[in-house]
Amino acid sequence: MPERHEINLPDVVAEVRAVFDRYEKALTDNDVPVLEELFWNSPHTTRYGVGENLYGWEAISAFRRARATGPFRRALSNTTITTYGRDYATANTEYRREGHDRPGRETKTLLRTPQGWRIVSAHVSLLGETV
Amino acid sequence: MPERHEINLPDVVAEVRAVFDRYEKALTDNDVPVLEELFWNSPHTTRYGVGENLYGWEAISAFRRARATGPFRRALSNTTITTYGRDYATANTEYRREGHDRPGRETKTLLRTPQGWRIVSAHVSLLGETV
Repeated sequence: MPERHEINLPDVVAEVRAVFDRYEKALTDNDVPVLEELFWNSPHTTRYGVGENLYGWEAISAFRRARATGPFRRALSNTTITTYGRDYATANTEYRREGHDRPGRETKTLLRTPQGWRIVSAHVSLLGETV
Repeated sequence: MPERHEINLPDVVAEVRAVFDRYEKALTDNDVPVLEELFWNSPHTTRYGVGENLYGWEAISAFRRARATGPFRRALSNTTITTYGRDYATANTEYRREGHDRPGRETKTLLRTPQGWRIVSAHVSLLGETV
């Protein structure tokens, strides 16, 4: 059985990197419409945030709109984008948010849809618990 | 542009569910060889654990082998498996580990490889921090 999914085709990685960067800017600018756009508009979309478990685009959108978060800054490290064929990707990154001690981690799974690349699953958490 | 990736084809979901269940049994049995098998053997594989950030299959394997974890029990809830076409899937679940207070969440991204379904990215964390 041949390897059907070429890993990290440069043009695909560049596309996903552009989406990743656009999301990061929207997140730190608190640009809710762009954040809503970049999540797959589906009941199957999931987002585990630092303090909440959200199922479906509607729940994710409602959470964003209810949150009184202004712009903030965070620094990324060890950002790892991997693409599988032309239509699937994961993006993992560590981050440190300005004014916060605990480092965080963020995972996104992305799918190329007819509307463009969309986040189908996201997971954000803080590092350091060793329960 | 047509929708190219059919969501949740029943036979694909069944395949991924079987891999998910096999992984869960191996995890709670501390069956390290099966856990190693089910992670994609690639330097691109990532695993964010509750207390560690691991990059590459070798690092994930070394972590497993160094850890003196015996079997344990945990209960899953809201397990959500979604498949995109025939070769790509995400699995999200909440869990409560016996003897621990804080609930956790676990995200896996899976790819069909020539060797079978493999986890290409995983993220495990505890819920409840609202920093």
